[in-house]
Amino acid sequence: MTNRLLESLSILHPIIQAPMAGGISTAELVTAVSEAGGLGMIGAGYLNAESTRHQVREVKAGTDKPFGINLFVPSPYKGKKDAIARSQQSLKPFLDKLGSTRMESGFTSYEQILEIYHKQVDVIIEEKVPVCSFTFGMPSSVVINSLRQAGIYTIGTATTLSEALAIEAAGMDAVVLQGSEAGGHRGNFLAGVEQSMIGLMALIPQTVDQVNIPVIAAGGIMDRRGVRAARCLGAQAAQLGTAFLTCKESGANPLHKQAILEGQQEDKTTLTKAFSGKAARGIENDFIREMREVETELPDFPIQNTLTKPIRSAAAQNNDRNMMSLWCGQNPNLAEPITAKELVHKLVDEE
Amino acid sequence: MTNRLLESLSILHPIIQAPMAGGISTAELVTAVSEAGGLGMIGAGYLNAESTRHQVREVKAGTDKPFGINLFVPSPYKGKKDAIARSQQSLKPFLDKLGSTRMESGFTSYEQILEIYHKQVDVIIEEKVPVCSFTFGMPSSVVINSLRQAGIYTIGTATTLSEALAIEAAGMDAVVLQGSEAGGHRGNFLAGVEQSMIGLMALIPQTVDQVNIPVIAAGGIMDRRGVRAARCLGAQAAQLGTAFLTCKESGANPLHKQAILEGQQEDKTTLTKAFSGKAARGIENDFIREMREVETELPDFPIQNTLTKPIRSAAAQNNDRNMMSLWCGQNPNLAEPITAKELVHKLVDEE
Repeated sequence: MTNRLLESLSILHPIIQAPMAGGISTAELVTAVSEAGGLGMIGAGYLNAESTRHQVREVKAGTDKPFGINLFVPSPYKGKKDAIARSQQSLKPFLDKLGSTRMESGFTSYEQILEIYHKQVDVIIEEKVPVCSFTFGMPSSVVINSLRQAGIYTIGTATTLSEALAIEAAGMDAVVLQGSEAGGHRGNFLAGVEQSMIGLMALIPQTVDQVNIPVIAAGGIMDRRGVRAARCLGAQAAQLGTAFLTCKESGANPLHKQAILEGQQEDKTTLTKAFSGKAARGIENDFIREMREVETELPDFPIQNTLTKPIRSAAAQNNDRNMMSLWCGQNPNLAEPITAKELVHKLVDEE
Repeated sequence: MTNRLLESLSILHPIIQAPMAGGISTAELVTAVSEAGGLGMIGAGYLNAESTRHQVREVKAGTDKPFGINLFVPSPYKGKKDAIARSQQSLKPFLDKLGSTRMESGFTSYEQILEIYHKQVDVIIEEKVPVCSFTFGMPSSVVINSLRQAGIYTIGTATTLSEALAIEAAGMDAVVLQGSEAGGHRGNFLAGVEQSMIGLMALIPQTVDQVNIPVIAAGGIMDRRGVRAARCLGAQAAQLGTAFLTCKESGANPLHKQAILEGQQEDKTTLTKAFSGKAARGIENDFIREMREVETELPDFPIQNTLTKPIRSAAAQNNDRNMMSLWCGQNPNLAEPITAKELVHKLVDEE
């Protein structure tokens, strides 16, 4: 089977490290994956233009192999004052428990977010980052065209066949199919969250039959068996998040890594909007459980994300994993505390 | 790779036709699958002992190859008078629309259901059905032992690793892993419905690593690619429902088949409790949409199933698919109106 994607990306193995925002995809992790023959990805979703450039340069200093970067496509959001006030009310007991008095009140407007995003795109073009992927929506044709004209390979993220078709129609080079198994935020943008929850076993074949651009499978893939299964179903590569999150080079909080690594037999991940206002899969903890009843009334992403920042910071300082966001896919049982290089090799080793 | 399961079952191909209750798995379908070298399965969940025996004998008359049967494990249920009255109230507009005046009021008690179930087990032993699988729970050790002593191969249904471990510990011979992709009723019995929604890409490897009995993958598998992927992940066989439902020999309502076969690009299955009181995946229609708001207050399975029977019957008579239960997995796009023999051969053909 020829692999158009590997040729286009000039990488050796069909392994992409999922761009995990919020400090998890360190330059060290990205570099290690690319050096091992996979594609390392910077998760720039929460970065500004300056820190985006900084991280790109860090990676460039570590490797001359191809790597990529991921951006969050901004969407207009709702965050009315009363919803914000209600959310702050629900969050107060957690802050009290953590002994924090911080309350976030400065929100970035949609216009400001858009401006940062466009500056990030400029940085990516200026720095000639080889690959740029997007999640949470469809980039404008201006953005797609300017990247492609600069010779940058563009990748969209879809959770349904319809979203994959839209990404192809918009002229992007490839598409990540995010299965319902995936940890972290859902990338749905046409489908609702429930409609977006399609398992890869069903999602990959129906998509590759109708889409001509290369398909990358993401969600629940943790080892060689998953990579092979994704290939059998028609994907040209696998994108792994949780498996790379517990690697030594990842910047995830040690308690986050530990929560995944000790995960035996518990069937314990769940979807929650409580941390950010957008549905994401993580290990269930007190915060998720106790916020469940107000979950439908929360302000949209990224307002709720800003509101919970003090809780997440204090939880990290207090080593309290019951109030951290412990993003994780549906197969933590196979995670290992190894190096990224070891992981890439294990993923592609022939028996 | 040796295949213990195929040897134990004495079948040629790692293909099991999912037992679809309610008249879909006709004797003709079961026979055709077994004759083609797979394992045909009778769906006896809604049958009494007499009709169970009748269908077993029909299959025996059609083939001397191995076949199987599936039973629903009865569970105590809640169905208080006021919940029943409220449900009847919600169902009335649908009956009116269908021009039906029938109202179900005679419910089978849990004790009666248990009695029917035990009689079915006796029939299966008397008729020496080669394989007996269970869903909706764990059969008692008395039931498991009496079947195994009669030389009958027993299979449990699990939706999580914990459920699979419980099935192995109970002494059953094999386990069907029902992924979140699967159409029809969820088989969860230890996990809640949400916790049971694990995609096969994540569920199979974590289970085969910890369970020693053979694992059969079910959910969203529609063609050779899915069968191969399931094998890559560690399953010894694939169990397919939706793919067999549209076969010529299936007894599914023609409108049900048509709804699946025309299913292009719509990402349209959903979970609902509205038809039976138990969560099941099907194609979204008016009935599911309009019942959504009362869904959490409905009486348990099988009370709600009895209550909706007049609606489902009248909908079938009126050819109104907006009030039928159109069970379907997450990949209707690959369904074909072919014979079961053609399907089995397509599933195992080497390119």
